[in-house]
Amino acid sequence: MPPNTVVDIPDFADIHLARARINDWTRLTPVLSDPGLDRELGCFVYCKCENLQRTGSFKFRGASNAISRLSEDGVEGDVATHSSGNHGAALALAAKLDGRKAHVVMPENSVVMKIAAVRRYGGIVHFCAPTQQSREDELAKLVEDGKIPVPPYDHADIIAGQGTAALELIQEVSTLEQVITPVGGGGLISGTAIAVGSTGQQVYGVEPEGAADTVASLEQGERVKSWTPDTIADGLRAIIGERNFTVIRNQVRQVFTVSDEDIRRAMYLFWQELRMVIEPSSATVVAAIRNHPEVFAGKKVGAIISGGNIDPGNWQSLTKRN
Amino acid sequence: MPPNTVVDIPDFADIHLARARINDWTRLTPVLSDPGLDRELGCFVYCKCENLQRTGSFKFRGASNAISRLSEDGVEGDVATHSSGNHGAALALAAKLDGRKAHVVMPENSVVMKIAAVRRYGGIVHFCAPTQQSREDELAKLVEDGKIPVPPYDHADIIAGQGTAALELIQEVSTLEQVITPVGGGGLISGTAIAVGSTGQQVYGVEPEGAADTVASLEQGERVKSWTPDTIADGLRAIIGERNFTVIRNQVRQVFTVSDEDIRRAMYLFWQELRMVIEPSSATVVAAIRNHPEVFAGKKVGAIISGGNIDPGNWQSLTKRN
Repeated sequence: MPPNTVVDIPDFADIHLARARINDWTRLTPVLSDPGLDRELGCFVYCKCENLQRTGSFKFRGASNAISRLSEDGVEGDVATHSSGNHGAALALAAKLDGRKAHVVMPENSVVMKIAAVRRYGGIVHFCAPTQQSREDELAKLVEDGKIPVPPYDHADIIAGQGTAALELIQEVSTLEQVITPVGGGGLISGTAIAVGSTGQQVYGVEPEGAADTVASLEQGERVKSWTPDTIADGLRAIIGERNFTVIRNQVRQVFTVSDEDIRRAMYLFWQELRMVIEPSSATVVAAIRNHPEVFAGKKVGAIISGGNIDPGNWQSLTKRN
Repeated sequence: MPPNTVVDIPDFADIHLARARINDWTRLTPVLSDPGLDRELGCFVYCKCENLQRTGSFKFRGASNAISRLSEDGVEGDVATHSSGNHGAALALAAKLDGRKAHVVMPENSVVMKIAAVRRYGGIVHFCAPTQQSREDELAKLVEDGKIPVPPYDHADIIAGQGTAALELIQEVSTLEQVITPVGGGGLISGTAIAVGSTGQQVYGVEPEGAADTVASLEQGERVKSWTPDTIADGLRAIIGERNFTVIRNQVRQVFTVSDEDIRRAMYLFWQELRMVIEPSSATVVAAIRNHPEVFAGKKVGAIISGGNIDPGNWQSLTKRN
């Protein structure tokens, strides 16, 4: 295969290459653990704090990798995507660092702070109705107009970039037995599964009950293509991608679901024990570990804390005291 | 001098010893920097994130060192202190880890979350009127009753413990030119000044305008012993300690003051750029760097982010958009 050909699904080597490629742009995020959190969850949890990644989420890894690949391949021009927020902000900053503009299609009901972030990093926001179809239609117009599409999760370079968080985590904590990540479109979990596939950790995923299209897809044996999401975890409302579903089906041990109530309590717990405000999507992993002692009790668990992009003014309304 | 004698003011070696002593209890907190923050502040800022320390502030370092010293010296029994919150929670956890109880005298107007934290770590709260005299009277009663007093800042073991944050910071970022910390009772700044004294960084401090007793003390050439504080930075309302003032006078280059308005904007900025909710006391250092380009422009500045103990539900009322 010639160099720089985009393969459909990346392998372990692609994640190492991505890690080297994005090294100067991304932050080596801290891995934090806490005895109080461990006591609450009944296991040893190592939190990879992507809430402290640049742009406030792991999405900056995939966006940086995708944009860097464009440059390596000599592809010039502005980029475009659709995103409820985190991928949009990430792409805006990655594009800016590479001297490009990013056009971001966002649902009208996006979190205000996420819209502001896209703009602050130099992105141009295009609003659309809050449906998958509307997002795709609006993006298609931008692509017709010559912008280069950079999809949020169903893309080899994005998956490879997102896998670098887990790569860093297992390099820092080599004794991990399990890794768990949230599941939205599936970029993070598929990258994670590929990153740890050769080192033996079991990989788990978690979805909100109100956006459990991946669990439904696994049950049906094929990808569910329509789902009307109803959850406070705004980062996980997407439908699982095709490449992503393929990886999950082959390499992920189980995908759990958690309720919005579980998520609220997990957000509160995380603040209480670790003094970090995280977004609802991130709290799903804490909730799943708490709900499933039959899987996690006594284990060394790597938890990818995916992002921290909420308005802290909304924290109280999003959390519930335990 | 015999081993384990408490000397009045610790030296560089005492801080190294403290670092070794508290190593198993404390968290090696991350040092984070961000190009967006650097752009806003006009210099290269390395944030030592003590907001992510156990109990949510640097105070756990001093408390751990003081309690460990008691054990080394074979001193048994419960401990007591007065605190508006962070030292109390820190002492409660350190005592618990050492199999003791901590009695904490707290002003009635303490932040609710700080009271809850003391109790969660097993501390016993005794309320008093919100004056220095009332705190001291209540503590005196507990000491008469046989509790071992562990003062919040004016004590060699506390100062040595607090200095370990700066020690870790200069070990991680050896090219730092300046270090800045908040100033309340002076435990953190005096420990910091001693820690970096032999390696050449200039040390700066910062107080809220409404609790600027240290600046007043420096101007008068002697310690101001009474001040009615009026600031949102609840962690900095204490009067500077005697040992602490001695160190500041000899080893700190300058102590700045910032307004509550500056603090509010700095808290907002810190969230915007680093996605961390910090308490007003911590934001003073960000505000001081921003206000004094004549000192900090273009420099490599270590900023000790002292704590993160607010109720996130109050974040909005404590911050101001820039």
